[in-house]
Amino acid sequence: MSLLTVGSVAFDALETPFGKTDKIIGGAATYITLSASYFTKQNNLVAVVGGDFPQEMIDVLVSHGVNTAGLEIRKDEKTFFWSGKYHENMNSRDTLEVQLNVMENFDPKIPAEYQNCQFLMLGNTAPAIQNMVLDRLDSRPQFVMLDTMNFWMDIAMDDLKAVLPKVDCLTVNDEEARQLSGDYSLRKAAKTIMAMGPKTLIIKKGEHGALLFQGNEIFFCPALPLEEVFDPTGAGDTFAGGFIGHLAATNDLSFQNMKRAIVYGSAMASFCVEKFGCERILDLTQVEINDRVQEFVKLAHFAV
Amino acid sequence: MSLLTVGSVAFDALETPFGKTDKIIGGAATYITLSASYFTKQNNLVAVVGGDFPQEMIDVLVSHGVNTAGLEIRKDEKTFFWSGKYHENMNSRDTLEVQLNVMENFDPKIPAEYQNCQFLMLGNTAPAIQNMVLDRLDSRPQFVMLDTMNFWMDIAMDDLKAVLPKVDCLTVNDEEARQLSGDYSLRKAAKTIMAMGPKTLIIKKGEHGALLFQGNEIFFCPALPLEEVFDPTGAGDTFAGGFIGHLAATNDLSFQNMKRAIVYGSAMASFCVEKFGCERILDLTQVEINDRVQEFVKLAHFAV
Repeated sequence: MSLLTVGSVAFDALETPFGKTDKIIGGAATYITLSASYFTKQNNLVAVVGGDFPQEMIDVLVSHGVNTAGLEIRKDEKTFFWSGKYHENMNSRDTLEVQLNVMENFDPKIPAEYQNCQFLMLGNTAPAIQNMVLDRLDSRPQFVMLDTMNFWMDIAMDDLKAVLPKVDCLTVNDEEARQLSGDYSLRKAAKTIMAMGPKTLIIKKGEHGALLFQGNEIFFCPALPLEEVFDPTGAGDTFAGGFIGHLAATNDLSFQNMKRAIVYGSAMASFCVEKFGCERILDLTQVEINDRVQEFVKLAHFAV
Repeated sequence: MSLLTVGSVAFDALETPFGKTDKIIGGAATYITLSASYFTKQNNLVAVVGGDFPQEMIDVLVSHGVNTAGLEIRKDEKTFFWSGKYHENMNSRDTLEVQLNVMENFDPKIPAEYQNCQFLMLGNTAPAIQNMVLDRLDSRPQFVMLDTMNFWMDIAMDDLKAVLPKVDCLTVNDEEARQLSGDYSLRKAAKTIMAMGPKTLIIKKGEHGALLFQGNEIFFCPALPLEEVFDPTGAGDTFAGGFIGHLAATNDLSFQNMKRAIVYGSAMASFCVEKFGCERILDLTQVEINDRVQEFVKLAHFAV
């Protein structure tokens, strides 16, 4: 099935306990489409960059089968830029600088060839823009997934609550689930959030794994304990790309298949954090991915 | 097989966001033996209490099949007392008061009938005392498990490092694993700690589950997401009691069976936190425990 991803394509500058980068390629939609490319070849991108964005990186996306017809290039403007520094424990980070640039007035245009996509991934951006994308589609996709963050809960909670009834699946981290619901218990928080619209909720817990909620069902997928987490940037987006990429590839929205999708997403995220930026997810093989998924099987399975 | 548990039997006073208790029964060995009692009937306790400890509670232990021949009662002294207050998130707590009382000169005496026990659980207490217990056994048990905490790493690290080569399995939480090893990555920390002696390491992550390490094998068991965590006191000890209780009952030290034991331990801990103190683990049925274990199967299993 055809997947449409809308979100940021950006420059990042990162500092982790392991090193520092100059401007490298980042952005939610970059990680999502790259990760999804290992699952589906109908992989359509809507994003906006400035004239400073390197053609070589667009070529890399294209070489991964990403359709960049919806990638707007504003020659006279600059690409969205984020710079951040991770704390020693890698679980928290400080934003050092944000230059919105082209994202200040992101006006997502959906190419005609993208209409009637069956799977839609709304990467983390302003809820009003995520809502606008839904309005601009001729028909509602079969499965709509939305990622958001605490920043939008702080400044645009009403917009977020307006779009939530229109989505099938929401992804947030544990602190965001608590903020959005007002509940400390994640089990209670999940009920509260699902009552806001999304029938499926994924709560990401970083190095502690991810929880999938749907009705009364709960599934937990651990994160793979790694010798070194080099750079967590993009792990959540890589996870989301693997998750929705697997769903789009299999066109099976059963809870059993969503569990499988969570494992594939977690496997993709476990690669992402092994190098800076999106470097590690540029040249994975199917064998590497399958081997990694088997590590999750060994990690999580037991017989009683 | 016969299990011997050495550790504290105590009074606790607790404050959680859900309420407050006066002095209630606590202590590592109380939780461990109660939890283990659902698995093994050869359940021997070595501990010390004061004359203020209620006979009714000793009767409760006995009614659970706990052998209290090794429970020393010092009529003229007072029982160990700990009081603590949990923070909003339940993952951290402040100690408000400690009265060592009888624990100040705990001199664990092993009754002759406990000699030749095959499974030994050294509950959290001074490493020098844990070492002393090993010295006082005529023969080394088949499986020795030791629990400790950051407090002993701060003030008795040499004693702890002296006892570690003599144990088969160590349990610590994630922060303690980092402190003991000097490694941030839990995978690296596990290697470092296993090189100190224990061939098996359990890293407890509270609401984030538990990791089991042995050689190159890793198993992760999630914690069950609960609507309400009422009081986390004793959860780690209840976990340990279920773990070693299952091992003693089955007398199977394979990695597969240890995985099963971790799940049983986690199921027992998930009950423990549902009420104050040890109340919830006083009257469980085998059906409740099996149903809870099935919830872990549903939570963790997937097919790829």
